[in-house]
Order: sequence, then structure tokens, then C-alpha cells
Amino acid sequence: MSSYWSDFVKHLEPYSPGEQPQINNITKLNTNENPYGPSPAVINAISEAADDRLRLYPPPEAEQLKNTIANYFDLSAAQIFVGNGSDEVLAHVFNGLLSHPDKGPLLFPDISYSFYPVFCQLYGINYEKIPLADDFSVNLDQYPSNNGGIIFPNPNAPTGLLLGLEAIENLLQKNTNSVVVVDEAYIDFGGQTAASLINRYDNLLVVQTMSKSRSLAGMRVGYAMGSEHLIEGLNRIKNSFNSYPLGHLQIAAAIAAFNDEQYFKNTSQQVIAERERVVDELESLGFEVLPSKANFILAQHPTNAANELADSLREKGIIVRYFAKPRIDQFLRITIGTESQNSLLIDSLKQLL
Amino acid sequence: MSSYWSDFVKHLEPYSPGEQPQINNITKLNTNENPYGPSPAVINAISEAADDRLRLYPPPEAEQLKNTIANYFDLSAAQIFVGNGSDEVLAHVFNGLLSHPDKGPLLFPDISYSFYPVFCQLYGINYEKIPLADDFSVNLDQYPSNNGGIIFPNPNAPTGLLLGLEAIENLLQKNTNSVVVVDEAYIDFGGQTAASLINRYDNLLVVQTMSKSRSLAGMRVGYAMGSEHLIEGLNRIKNSFNSYPLGHLQIAAAIAAFNDEQYFKNTSQQVIAERERVVDELESLGFEVLPSKANFILAQHPTNAANELADSLREKGIIVRYFAKPRIDQFLRITIGTESQNSLLIDSLKQLL
Repeated sequence: MSSYWSDFVKHLEPYSPGEQPQINNITKLNTNENPYGPSPAVINAISEAADDRLRLYPPPEAEQLKNTIANYFDLSAAQIFVGNGSDEVLAHVFNGLLSHPDKGPLLFPDISYSFYPVFCQLYGINYEKIPLADDFSVNLDQYPSNNGGIIFPNPNAPTGLLLGLEAIENLLQKNTNSVVVVDEAYIDFGGQTAASLINRYDNLLVVQTMSKSRSLAGMRVGYAMGSEHLIEGLNRIKNSFNSYPLGHLQIAAAIAAFNDEQYFKNTSQQVIAERERVVDELESLGFEVLPSKANFILAQHPTNAANELADSLREKGIIVRYFAKPRIDQFLRITIGTESQNSLLIDSLKQLL
Repeated sequence: MSSYWSDFVKHLEPYSPGEQPQINNITKLNTNENPYGPSPAVINAISEAADDRLRLYPPPEAEQLKNTIANYFDLSAAQIFVGNGSDEVLAHVFNGLLSHPDKGPLLFPDISYSFYPVFCQLYGINYEKIPLADDFSVNLDQYPSNNGGIIFPNPNAPTGLLLGLEAIENLLQKNTNSVVVVDEAYIDFGGQTAASLINRYDNLLVVQTMSKSRSLAGMRVGYAMGSEHLIEGLNRIKNSFNSYPLGHLQIAAAIAAFNDEQYFKNTSQQVIAERERVVDELESLGFEVLPSKANFILAQHPTNAANELADSLREKGIIVRYFAKPRIDQFLRITIGTESQNSLLIDSLKQLL
């Protein structure tokens, strides 16, 4: 605490990211990274861009990357916003599009991405958490219309449950006075993006990241897609904050990742196939596993406490994530790894149970 | 303008970065980039880090980079904050350390980095601009003590004038109730960093960038140095905004740049020597050139209008920066280039005058 801090800093409770151990020989299934590295084309693109040109500022509007993303989703470049990971994108979204004290509180699920309430605290946004149903699904019908905005991950994290486009479109039809943000960090592992609805609903913003299905968590690239005026609002904030959130290598890597569609499809399919195998194996060990369309699963065992299982796995060199939070404190969140990592996890659990 | 924007967005007037033309064969002397590329060791470090590990999140606290910077400045890692370019660092500084409505307005020079008033607008910070003296110097004695903070670039931009450490220490001795930020983007081209004062003044924050003297504008790395409690305030904001502002390659490049001290010294010396040559040549063409300790100069000609000179240079493929602002609208701001770029500039001016 310091008298030199701006007042609000004294009350900030920052987000805690998952552990990033700097040790080798650890099976790291705790932060939902892709078990496969980026496409070789991405590594090549980085090498080609890493030269004397790094002395120059990058293009502040990253036009080439925006065009690439726009083409991929059949949108225009003016409907694309890019940033330094989807967390930075989300921060600007909360600040610029979700702060409407006159309209009502911002709404999001009570069990969801735990950065949302932190952003609200940072920007002084009033919010209300809407409880998940008993089966952990997001029931958008329960979201009241007097709100300052709605945001939810799809699939939801850390549950992995997916909403279909019909449910999202139903919400958009009744909720026209505030922005609806669909946070699609995990959409490529079995869901359908809401980007196809953007041209029909000008209050829809879809946020994606290159950290999961595109294997680029270490590069920091995220983006948002929406109507031109939503994107213009975000650009105003970005250009009042940091003109160049993406460097040359980030832009080059992101473009190359989009261009190697086959690699993306193959690796995503491998993750999906492994997820189904892990679910089967865990269920045969007695676990209850929530139906996941993400690259992680949330699973609980009827007799073994989740925190103790997490500790025991750690002793065996496997890190999974445990949340000491209501309703999910008996669950482990396990990232889907490579085939051998997953087999190691299952074998270790067999020994522990 | 959109009803979906948070109210304050409607009144934001974003910063305008210098143009980044995507055309070759242009002599780009408009955004104060280093004319020399980064050290070959930096390019190697990037290549070595660009592999499968990019699938993993970077270390959120970038400990290794903080240690490198701390060692360089004889500080501790807890006295270092790192971010995605010094603009992001400055944004968090304005938000977290310079917003004190009870203490008085934030103070900065009237002719200075034009992002400062934009940050103030973004965070609703009341500010007062203190006029430069007639010779364009910053007179810190004129900064009243009832303030919410003081920030100035040293050397100042776009004037290039340097303050000595004695003037800064005098200010720190009388101004103890608010944070004093010395923004040292250009310090390595002839100034002395105030980092040596940090252990004696716990309200001093020194901000530097790797975009100028370290030739890494395209990578986006900046940092702040100050007492542990100032840095803790910044970390709270960063961890409520984006856990991982720096990717693996940014961290690797920045560490390698610090480790190649000889390259840094050589290239900085070349820029300084060229600056002195350019000043001499411009003065012999009749220009008045402000005494610069930066990698740019601010120069005016007694008979030729600055905006017309800028346009004429552009027709010859040379871009310099012109600010249509009071007191400096008869000046050109010219970045020091390579020897051949500078000679081209001088030859072109000879033709135009």
C-alpha cells in the first residue's frame, strides 16, 4: 500500500494466471495450452521477419493481419480489432463497450473466466453473476434485459460446456440495447463460431485468441470481431493506450498460422480425439466428467477429494488446475495433452485411486 | 459514435503515431527509430526461442528480463516493471500512479510527448501544462508543489533538450508528495539516466524503452524502474489487465539486446556522431537547430516554411515530422539516420533552399 498509488489501486485484487513452471520434465496440463507446437510455417514466418526491420515500428493498425482474419471469417477488415492476446482485447472491451451504469449491471455466469470480475474492478463496472443451471449449463433465458452488457465464454470455462448458435441468436433477438460478447477462446475444439451472426446483429462482439487452437500462447495475439462501430470504439481506446500492441513477429506469426489451415485442422482434430479418449478413460475410473467441447475437461471423482488428487498428481510431475471455489471445488480442470501425456495422466490416476 | 460505447469513448481523441509507410525506397526520418538494426545476437536469440515452446504461455512476470535490467542498472528485480513498449508502461503509470485529484493536477511541459494528454483523457486525469522557457528548456523550478504528479521526457521530445541530474534531484528534494516520472526514451543518446537516484527517492519512477537506442521498436518492450512499492502498484494494474504483456520472443530479444553492450554502445555513438554532423550541416544551411541530446533534432529555417519544406522533402522520398502546433509550427523534427540517409537529407535541402 502506498500513498503514491491512485486510490483505486489499493483495492485491486489482480487475476491469478495458472502457474508457468520453469522446470523441464513436467507434464503441464494446467493452462489449456495446445499440446502441439505452432505450424512449421509459423516458425518460418518468424525467422523471415526477424531481421533489421525490427528497428522499425510495426504497422499500428496491423492491416495485413486484419485482412487475413477478415477473409477467414468472411468479414471486412473494419470489423476486426487485434490486440496483445485476448486478455488485452477483453480489457479494452470491458472499458469501452461494457460500462453502462445507466442501463444496469454487466451480466456474466457465476462460474466462468475469473478475469471478468477483475476487469470490472479495474474499470469500476457494476456486475451481476447469473448462476449456471444445475447441470452447469449457461441458461441465457435467465439473463434480464435491463443490463449494461452480457459476456460469456463459449464453450464456457472452466466447465467446457458449449452453447449452440440458436441459443445465442435467441439472446441477440431479445437483448438489443447492450453489447453481447461471446468469448470464443475454445470454440475451435468442437463449437461453431458466432462470427456468422455479426452482419445481422450490430451489438454482437466475438472475441477469439491465437493462444489455444492456433498454438501461439507464447506470441500474444487475440482479436475481436463485430460491427464497424463496435470496432471503432475499441480502436479509439487502443489508440489512446498503446499505438502498437502487436510487433512485427506477432503479426507475421498470426498471419502464417491462419494461412496453414490444414495444420490447424489436423491438430485441432487430434486434440478433440484425445479429449474423447480421456473422457472415456476417466469415466471408466469412476470420474464424472462434464460434457466438454474445449481442450480441457472438468472432472470430479465420487470418493477422492480434488485438491488431494491435484497434490498427488503434482508429486508425480503432472500439474492440473484446481479452483477452491463454490460448486467446482470437487473438480479438477485438466488440459488435454498429447497422447503420451494423457496416457501418463490416466496411468497416474489409476495408481492413485 | 454509438450508443453501445461507454460514455467516455465518445469524447476520446486518440494519439496519432507517426506514419509507418509500407513502401520501400523511402528515407524514413519521422519516428525516431534507430537507423541501425538490432544486434545480430538479438536475431539469434529470437531464432533460438522460436520453436514448439511458443505454444506455452510466457512467464507472466518475465523474471529473467527483470533480472537482466536490474543488473544493468544496479537495482533489484522488484524495482523493475516491464511492458509491451513504453507506451503501455506509461498508460499503467498514468492510471496507477498519476491520478490524485485530491493533491492537484498532473503537471507536464506544454511542448512534450503528445501522448501525455491522451492518457489523461483516457483515465480522467486533471492536468496542467507548464510552458517551456523561451529557449525551449524545461524549468522544473516552475512546477508548483501542489500537484498530483509530474512527468517529463528527458531529453524532452520533440525538442531534444536535456536536463541534468542535478535539476532532477532538486525537483525530487522539494516534490516529495507525488510521483515524479522521468521518461527517458532518448536518454542513451547523450544524457545520464536518473536510475541512479531511485534508491534515494522513493517517489521517482524512470521509464525507458527498447525502441530507440536498442533498435527494437518492432518488438515492443518498455520498462519502468522505481521503488518497490511504486512497482507493486504497477504490477497490480498489469495483473488486472493482461497477465502476459510480453511474449517469449520479446523477452528473449530484450535480454539479448542488454547482453550485447558493445553493439549498443557502438550504434549509439554512431548516431551521436551523425547528429553532430547533421547539426553542423543544417546550421551552415541557415537552420536554427535546438541543442539536442536525442536521436532527432528540431530545426527551423529563417525563410522557408516548415510545412512546405516537409512536403518538398516528401516529394523527394524523405519523410520527416511536422507538428502544426503553437511555438513549433516553424520547425521540422528530423530523426538521425544512417550516414547516407543524412547526406541525402542534406543534399535534398541544399536543392530546396
